[in-house]
Amino acid sequence: MQISTETLVKGIKSGDKRLLGKAITLVESKKPEHRIQADLLLKEILPFTGNSVRVGITGVPGAGKSTFIENFGKLLLEKGKKVAVLAIDPSSAINKGSILGDKTRMEELSREENAFIRPSPSSGFLGGVANATFETMLLCEAAGYDYILIETVGVGQSEVLVSDITDVFLFIKIIGGGDELQGIKRGIMEMIDVVFINKINENNLQAAKNEKIELKRAMHFMPSKEENWQIPVLFGSALKNEGLVEVFTALQNFIDLKIKNKNFLETRQTQAEKRFDYWVQEYILEKIKSDKQSADRYLEHKKNASEMKVNPSSEARLWVDEIFKSR
Amino acid sequence: MQISTETLVKGIKSGDKRLLGKAITLVESKKPEHRIQADLLLKEILPFTGNSVRVGITGVPGAGKSTFIENFGKLLLEKGKKVAVLAIDPSSAINKGSILGDKTRMEELSREENAFIRPSPSSGFLGGVANATFETMLLCEAAGYDYILIETVGVGQSEVLVSDITDVFLFIKIIGGGDELQGIKRGIMEMIDVVFINKINENNLQAAKNEKIELKRAMHFMPSKEENWQIPVLFGSALKNEGLVEVFTALQNFIDLKIKNKNFLETRQTQAEKRFDYWVQEYILEKIKSDKQSADRYLEHKKNASEMKVNPSSEARLWVDEIFKSR
Repeated sequence: MQISTETLVKGIKSGDKRLLGKAITLVESKKPEHRIQADLLLKEILPFTGNSVRVGITGVPGAGKSTFIENFGKLLLEKGKKVAVLAIDPSSAINKGSILGDKTRMEELSREENAFIRPSPSSGFLGGVANATFETMLLCEAAGYDYILIETVGVGQSEVLVSDITDVFLFIKIIGGGDELQGIKRGIMEMIDVVFINKINENNLQAAKNEKIELKRAMHFMPSKEENWQIPVLFGSALKNEGLVEVFTALQNFIDLKIKNKNFLETRQTQAEKRFDYWVQEYILEKIKSDKQSADRYLEHKKNASEMKVNPSSEARLWVDEIFKSR
Repeated sequence: MQISTETLVKGIKSGDKRLLGKAITLVESKKPEHRIQADLLLKEILPFTGNSVRVGITGVPGAGKSTFIENFGKLLLEKGKKVAVLAIDPSSAINKGSILGDKTRMEELSREENAFIRPSPSSGFLGGVANATFETMLLCEAAGYDYILIETVGVGQSEVLVSDITDVFLFIKIIGGGDELQGIKRGIMEMIDVVFINKINENNLQAAKNEKIELKRAMHFMPSKEENWQIPVLFGSALKNEGLVEVFTALQNFIDLKIKNKNFLETRQTQAEKRFDYWVQEYILEKIKSDKQSADRYLEHKKNASEMKVNPSSEARLWVDEIFKSR
């Protein structure tokens, strides 16, 4: 990373996509020297962040997320918005191309000047790359993107993260009752603010209407965390550009309600605190594991707890005492 | 706490309820000298733990949880089991008596020799009392209780904890579609293994059957985390002892399936690891906050992050560096 922080800041603010990409690679890096520069960079661009609508998008493979994002993204462009698309994909390490990795996807959107598409880190965020989606989002905001779409797949861990850094969470599904949801981990349904049933045509329109009723029933048992919000179940065809305006309106209504409920900036504050606590834990563990001896001790203590050789609380106290004594 | 560890251990193992109660107060204490004794005590009793069925029970106020536990507890006693009832109640600090605090509740059960009822810590676990339900459970196991029933109310945080320390999670509700569930936080439904619709008589039997269908439909969208488990929706009347045997069988079936899936001990191991990580965080924060200066620094850093004056990740790194440098 030979590019100066100043060059990166200028590049980001002027909307240079190549430099934005370099900056993202920088904040994703775990190398100490990169982190120092990443901190400097983030400090510089921070005053220019916070102005986007942050949208989480999830759905099982095959629900048509890419097509949706392609055409929904173009709708946003038509409305004069700049759109950035990010992806969190824990499976990308195993199954490359499963999400955004395939360059033929979102081909048209990616060619648009006001769109920026960032594939998920190639090693997967559970590997050698830090989980820097939040920071990536900040960089995109500083580059002037009005909508940040963060795509993920319905496998649990990544949804929690997306829910923890976005303003509104969209669920894209296809018809199939609950069956095709078996692949979706419990807990996902609880985070959703808007549902879009995709791939609807005149042949399965009635089925879509029935599914909507069923989903609305199920929603009864999962009331929205946002006061006075009835989770909308919309349907259409992303491929044929049907129903996308309704999704746009629903997302906007949700944001408006959140602002009205004085819950918009408050949620973002809570999210920032969560990021802080997340990183505090990460860095403390990193510090501790940085020399082999204490890394081994950590695993030893954890194993003792896991096997109930020692009561977990006692074992935790032992270990924390050890850390703080040895310094 | 003037009672020796030896006396406590002997008392617990001989089933002395008074000494069991004292031991629980000890593990709930945050005083350093109590903690040292609590660690010793837990170490002594650990070989005698792990043999109970750990049942979490939740439901909105008014669902009849107390009556259920009273009569279900008696059913367990009839089957030759020893029963301990614990409670996690974050609201007890505000609204005393809301859960198990009222001594007139479970009156008959509490008089039984083979039953032990422990009200929630009077200050609420979010106050000055440590969240020691897991340790309390271990003490009860060492005292020979075969079933540990852990009661909570449907408000979110406490359910996660209960789900993290039990083998099976029972949800008690009354008829009322989803409406009366509005008070239940999102996410609760996702943890449930068995549902019991309470207060059913011949007048509302049909409504119960309809509700069962609705619930089963909703369950489609929340498949069990346990492979091959269809969440049973049972109904009856706890007051009239109707349907309780079915609940017993359902809980047992779930445990059996978990064992068959080789997921029973595995889940407990994961739970123990979670307890370890939970306490590591607690103790690290405690260490850091133990002097006023660093406690203030923590809050300052967190505030900077929350207000996005500094990027949360950078701020976390700053602070962790500070902690480890100052030692």
